[in-house]
Amino acid sequence: MNGQQQQRLQAFSQQAITAIPLLQSMDVRFTAFNDYSLRVDMPLAPNINDKNTGFGGSIVALATTAGWAMLQLLMQGLSRDYQVLIVESHIRYLAPVTANCYALASVTESAMCAFYKMLNQRGSGRMTIQTAIEQDGKQLAVFTGTYKVMQRLPG
Amino acid sequence: MNGQQQQRLQAFSQQAITAIPLLQSMDVRFTAFNDYSLRVDMPLAPNINDKNTGFGGSIVALATTAGWAMLQLLMQGLSRDYQVLIVESHIRYLAPVTANCYALASVTESAMCAFYKMLNQRGSGRMTIQTAIEQDGKQLAVFTGTYKVMQRLPG
Repeated sequence: MNGQQQQRLQAFSQQAITAIPLLQSMDVRFTAFNDYSLRVDMPLAPNINDKNTGFGGSIVALATTAGWAMLQLLMQGLSRDYQVLIVESHIRYLAPVTANCYALASVTESAMCAFYKMLNQRGSGRMTIQTAIEQDGKQLAVFTGTYKVMQRLPG
Repeated sequence: MNGQQQQRLQAFSQQAITAIPLLQSMDVRFTAFNDYSLRVDMPLAPNINDKNTGFGGSIVALATTAGWAMLQLLMQGLSRDYQVLIVESHIRYLAPVTANCYALASVTESAMCAFYKMLNQRGSGRMTIQTAIEQDGKQLAVFTGTYKVMQRLPG
């Protein structure tokens, strides 16, 4: 990530973690961001379950957050002020999380181009983001989230 | 719920909340259980987001937990010791959560009959649970979770 992206990620991270107390409980860290991907890390300890592996609720909350944050960060590069809401999501758990893990949210250039065009035309739109949950490079869950993006109302 | 169900719910609740720290952060309460439904309550304050409504991550974690707990509680009525794991889930958010909410997980008699039969035959199986997120009787999200149930290995 370049300096501007790093600055944007730091400011966003601070706002998000202050505004959403559960992100503090999960101890998530927004660690890397560029125009096509975002990485969000999460330690195992506060997110453990009764089987001493990652709690499914934490994993799906992490993935939900990563997709939302990816879009919110991209929207901060535009001139208008947008808010991003989760509309629908699907997750498939492939293997238990047994250590610290991270979410990788990603978008393609072509999907974002189409989305920016829609935003310009209508002022709002929906975007689907793919997010993988990984541990040491191994995929442990795959998540698809659809988010609604709309101009933030003043006040 | 009858006395036996209440006792089972209390014991389960204590174990679950002790074993899964995020349930403490979310401040969930397992409030009612019978053979066909489970209610899990969640206050808004610790689960708020940047828009001052319920954080999507908390809502999907609550629904994931309710379906898991419903099955785990039903399995505790059997003679063998089973563990329940989330395999896959889908959630659709219908409207923002603006106050304390609750999850209602439910199963039908016929689905459970078929599932018990499969468990007897194979020792493990998959079960899909519908869970609604409600606030004052109004449905705000609908969740479908598929869980794997298998005998707990000793040790």
